[in-house]
Amino acid sequence: MLYFVNDYCEGAHEEILKRLVETNMEKLDGYGMDSYCESAKEKIRRACECPNADVTFLVGGTQTNAVVIGSMLNRYEGVVSAKTGHVSVHEAGAIEYTGHKVLEIPEKDGKIDAQVLRQYLETFYQDGNHDHMVFPGMVYISHPTEYGTLYTKAELKAISEVCKSFEIPLFLDGARLGYGLVSKGTDLTLADIAHLVDVFYIGGTKVGAFCGEAVVFPNGAPKHFITMVKQQGALLAKGRLLGIQFDTLFTNDLYLKISENAIQTAEVLKQALKERGYQFYVDSPTNQIFVILEDHQKERLEKRVAFSFWEKMDESHTVVRFATSWATKMEDVKALIEIL
Amino acid sequence: MLYFVNDYCEGAHEEILKRLVETNMEKLDGYGMDSYCESAKEKIRRACECPNADVTFLVGGTQTNAVVIGSMLNRYEGVVSAKTGHVSVHEAGAIEYTGHKVLEIPEKDGKIDAQVLRQYLETFYQDGNHDHMVFPGMVYISHPTEYGTLYTKAELKAISEVCKSFEIPLFLDGARLGYGLVSKGTDLTLADIAHLVDVFYIGGTKVGAFCGEAVVFPNGAPKHFITMVKQQGALLAKGRLLGIQFDTLFTNDLYLKISENAIQTAEVLKQALKERGYQFYVDSPTNQIFVILEDHQKERLEKRVAFSFWEKMDESHTVVRFATSWATKMEDVKALIEIL
Amino acid sequence: MLYFVNDYCEGAHEEILKRLVETNMEKLDGYGMDSYCESAKEKIRRACECPNADVTFLVGGTQTNAVVIGSMLNRYEGVVSAKTGHVSVHEAGAIEYTGHKVLEIPEKDGKIDAQVLRQYLETFYQDGNHDHMVFPGMVYISHPTEYGTLYTKAELKAISEVCKSFEIPLFLDGARLGYGLVSKGTDLTLADIAHLVDVFYIGGTKVGAFCGEAVVFPNGAPKHFITMVKQQGALLAKGRLLGIQFDTLFTNDLYLKISENAIQTAEVLKQALKERGYQFYVDSPTNQIFVILEDHQKERLEKRVAFSFWEKMDESHTVVRFATSWATKMEDVKALIEIL
Amino acid sequence: MLYFVNDYCEGAHEEILKRLVETNMEKLDGYGMDSYCESAKEKIRRACECPNADVTFLVGGTQTNAVVIGSMLNRYEGVVSAKTGHVSVHEAGAIEYTGHKVLEIPEKDGKIDAQVLRQYLETFYQDGNHDHMVFPGMVYISHPTEYGTLYTKAELKAISEVCKSFEIPLFLDGARLGYGLVSKGTDLTLADIAHLVDVFYIGGTKVGAFCGEAVVFPNGAPKHFITMVKQQGALLAKGRLLGIQFDTLFTNDLYLKISENAIQTAEVLKQALKERGYQFYVDSPTNQIFVILEDHQKERLEKRVAFSFWEKMDESHTVVRFATSWATKMEDVKALIEIL
Repeated sequence: MLYFVNDYCEGAHEEILKRLVETNMEKLDGYGMDSYCESAKEKIRRACECPNADVTFLVGGTQTNAVVIGSMLNRYEGVVSAKTGHVSVHEAGAIEYTGHKVLEIPEKDGKIDAQVLRQYLETFYQDGNHDHMVFPGMVYISHPTEYGTLYTKAELKAISEVCKSFEIPLFLDGARLGYGLVSKGTDLTLADIAHLVDVFYIGGTKVGAFCGEAVVFPNGAPKHFITMVKQQGALLAKGRLLGIQFDTLFTNDLYLKISENAIQTAEVLKQALKERGYQFYVDSPTNQIFVILEDHQKERLEKRVAFSFWEKMDESHTVVRFATSWATKMEDVKALIEIL
Repeated sequence: MLYFVNDYCEGAHEEILKRLVETNMEKLDGYGMDSYCESAKEKIRRACECPNADVTFLVGGTQTNAVVIGSMLNRYEGVVSAKTGHVSVHEAGAIEYTGHKVLEIPEKDGKIDAQVLRQYLETFYQDGNHDHMVFPGMVYISHPTEYGTLYTKAELKAISEVCKSFEIPLFLDGARLGYGLVSKGTDLTLADIAHLVDVFYIGGTKVGAFCGEAVVFPNGAPKHFITMVKQQGALLAKGRLLGIQFDTLFTNDLYLKISENAIQTAEVLKQALKERGYQFYVDSPTNQIFVILEDHQKERLEKRVAFSFWEKMDESHTVVRFATSWATKMEDVKALIEIL
Repeated sequence: MLYFVNDYCEGAHEEILKRLVETNMEKLDGYGMDSYCESAKEKIRRACECPNADVTFLVGGTQTNAVVIGSMLNRYEGVVSAKTGHVSVHEAGAIEYTGHKVLEIPEKDGKIDAQVLRQYLETFYQDGNHDHMVFPGMVYISHPTEYGTLYTKAELKAISEVCKSFEIPLFLDGARLGYGLVSKGTDLTLADIAHLVDVFYIGGTKVGAFCGEAVVFPNGAPKHFITMVKQQGALLAKGRLLGIQFDTLFTNDLYLKISENAIQTAEVLKQALKERGYQFYVDSPTNQIFVILEDHQKERLEKRVAFSFWEKMDESHTVVRFATSWATKMEDVKALIEIL
Repeated sequence: MLYFVNDYCEGAHEEILKRLVETNMEKLDGYGMDSYCESAKEKIRRACECPNADVTFLVGGTQTNAVVIGSMLNRYEGVVSAKTGHVSVHEAGAIEYTGHKVLEIPEKDGKIDAQVLRQYLETFYQDGNHDHMVFPGMVYISHPTEYGTLYTKAELKAISEVCKSFEIPLFLDGARLGYGLVSKGTDLTLADIAHLVDVFYIGGTKVGAFCGEAVVFPNGAPKHFITMVKQQGALLAKGRLLGIQFDTLFTNDLYLKISENAIQTAEVLKQALKERGYQFYVDSPTNQIFVILEDHQKERLEKRVAFSFWEKMDESHTVVRFATSWATKMEDVKALIEIL
């Protein structure tokens, strides 16, 4: 059975494994106070061109979203998100569990538009009283989005400017950031992102690590951030596990290098799908490919390849997702193409 | 200045005042354990034809919604509501503050449709995993809705059946219930509602009381409901204040009788608006009248009559609301008509 | 049956009733934006000698504690309270429901000591890491306390100084403040309190009102306080009900005058108890009298007078409470004395 | 510098590393649905002699406590814990963040006593109303405790019986369970624990794993437990990381075998401390040794060995902790003894 279900089905990149083995018996301080965490933070600061950034390593994506949003919002505020945003749809209400509303706005292919955002905020503050409403306290976007799409530099800049003009922070969820950074045609670099947002995270779980997301506050973290991380049960005792992984990923550009494999394999697969006349649900330039299958196609493929159900399109069509990753082998892609 | 801003601008019905004065120096137990609360509960049970109903008196509407929803939902559940539902839009995130998501579904004139609800629930449970999503744990509707519209008995029955088939409770917000019950042409009685929903409240604040909403659980309240009421700061020490008010409102049908005044005055006003060619934003059969004003009309009227801004319609039009109530004088309506 | 169970068993002071009746049909703005609220706030500011104070009217005591504490604490903070503090023991977990821990410290007769507080705070910040602990974010005291005791001016000043030196706000729960202000021998005035604390409330429910507590922030309320009040379901639509009551209570010193009745009747009762050899559980100078009864005494008295069970003392003794109030008649006290 | 600061300063047991490397490129399902998680669960069920137990792998201790307590308690309930319980003191308010109060009861050397617990519960339910209080909804104990002490089988049985008679679940925090199970003289087995409590966890982080705690519900987990895990941000995408670790630890009794090293090294160290006249703060039979040092002793030792500050004893004495672990080398213990 070929496996294209998701981008977190393997363990960790072999270089990470090697470093974990090498450092295993060193006695290190806990809770992220060790030298590997320090080194990893420094490398990330450099990669982001943000010498004063606060970097914190958390374990997983939902956790990171809940911790970042829950620690940045005031009590009377909610987080603005695309209707399709992961925080709104697929995190079991983790944001609401912290007491905050997700304020949904319309999206297109998973992306929000600066103009739509501006209008939403203007309407909120326009005449009429808003004291009985949830204040928009931050904006959440994902890059790549849940549909694999990417913001251009101009688009992100426009969103950033709207946020600045309303004085609300911008948070970029980078669970799959590596795949976005090396996508063909993207003009957004890590330094651009660090420059344009108030907080973002560099996803490890889906890009070569066993687990781990690096939260970056380019201009400093909220006061007592670590205590809030602990309060949400997100502080790892053996912080080394995260520090060593990110130190490895940010040595010799490993993070970007291994991301490229996902893009290359995805490109080959997309080309083949296109040639065979498959319809795409959305045009994604990264490692997630959303295809509309007729039911009989779906049944046939399911026998030999594992992929993700996304949603019912209509009576006889289904949207499914094929995902590649840092670990996908080109030979598996070719085997998949054979049976398309 | 004529005042049609809302339906809570006067104090309490004079009969209530009289009873408060009469009973004032009686020494009564606190926290709703007094004889007036008991009597009021019994009268409400009778009016609802629900001899086993649990009745609890709370102070205000947002509080009641937060207490009912927060005490009935399991932790992993959210409340399904029309996108325009009061709990979703105008309660400052009170529901999310209890840790629960408001799951918005489409509406028409403030009402949800049984078919739309069924489809939403079916999609949630259809193939594909929903363990990472917020479970729909109850359905919230308002009657009259935020737009003054009403469910027919058939419509409410259909929604009730969908809820039953998915085994989730149905909650009816009756902040303005009196006005709905006496609206011309409605076929829904108090007993019907008590029969078709799992919990509802009979609004006092907007129908003749200083404050107070009577929460009715036709088949019994959640375990330790009073402790949860206390936990949300909603347990009134001098429960008599609520008990005496509702005891009065449910003596000799006072609640329905005074509601009729709101409908009669609204009908006269609506007829006059229609004759003068005003456009309605929605066709409301109760005491809230939503009118689309051109800006110059709005400016002219504002000088002599107070009404509510609702929302901008477009560049040159605004939706406004005129509200009548149990206390509106027909002479004020006539004065308003003069200047329309 | 004589009734000394609590200080909230009657309705409202007759002057309040009169004003409610007089103003009843005036059309006023909602949510505390009416002229009576404004007038009441101004009178309270004057009584507190705090021209810039923010005053907000809430409905009840637990609600007020939860709203004040929940809106002033940062997420990583808890509220320091005497182990016997109302917020810790008798509010059904209302503070924890807002996500905050009550940090208990030792007390004597319901009061905390400045030195004990200082030591607690110093220990918290001493060497050793406290990032994994709940930060002490404010201090809660009650005056009178749950045991009817009072702080002296020197004691409150000392506590205030400790709070200032650690930069954490001091909150005084004045559910029974009136009775404290007119207690014989107290040297603490309303202006003193407003000068020494960061927030306090003037209790109405137990001092002549149907309901209502006036929250005073001498130096301004937290940003968007009203939205947080709404979020906790504590914003009364007909704010007039609270405004008119407090406007009345703060006209011609009515609040203090009616408080005196509670003290006078309590003094007579205490004297009689002392003469008859009853043992006091605590020496309270206000309107709550805690007496240790032998079981046979308790049984005998219970037949003719209602009082409060407080706690079991030992196998054969029970602590009970007799409470007087603004409404207690001296003839009832005399009747009680007859049967002691 | 010798390092005896804690029991989580090394990486993972080499056998775990080996298995992680071997299985690294296998494509596995996410979120704990993989075969290694299944296998680990089955082995744990067998070790616990609980064929129907629900086993869930979480990442860390605070997280586990917050998830278990937050998912088992009703909204009106709190968790009873020793005053020194980790959940009460050192988790940054993680329990309160879920909305629940920690109800502290007295302890001795970190342990609670069945009689004290029974009395606490009886007092709660005795005459007098408890509707305004937080209901005791579960009991939390740790084994070993925060002071390294252990319950005997008779003691745990007595606590279990109290819980059963009040129908509240018993939760045992086993962050260091391995060290308790192999402590000399303990008569409590894993099967005993599984038989006597309603939920417990087998700590991995402090006993040979990089991270991970195995939550065991001997009689089944709460409904939709996984959704609540996700809601608290505690669901690991690559569940394999936890599954493989626990599968390894529960193969050939590795968990118990490596725990023995901690006990053996601790015993040698304790004996030496005793011989040299050091005073113990508490008599711990497990891997944590609490010693009272005079300040000059502390200063001298600090130069060559790292240990934990615990608390100030008095002006000139400090309580410190030496911890051994699965990874402590006997040669390091000997070197430490040399310089004592």
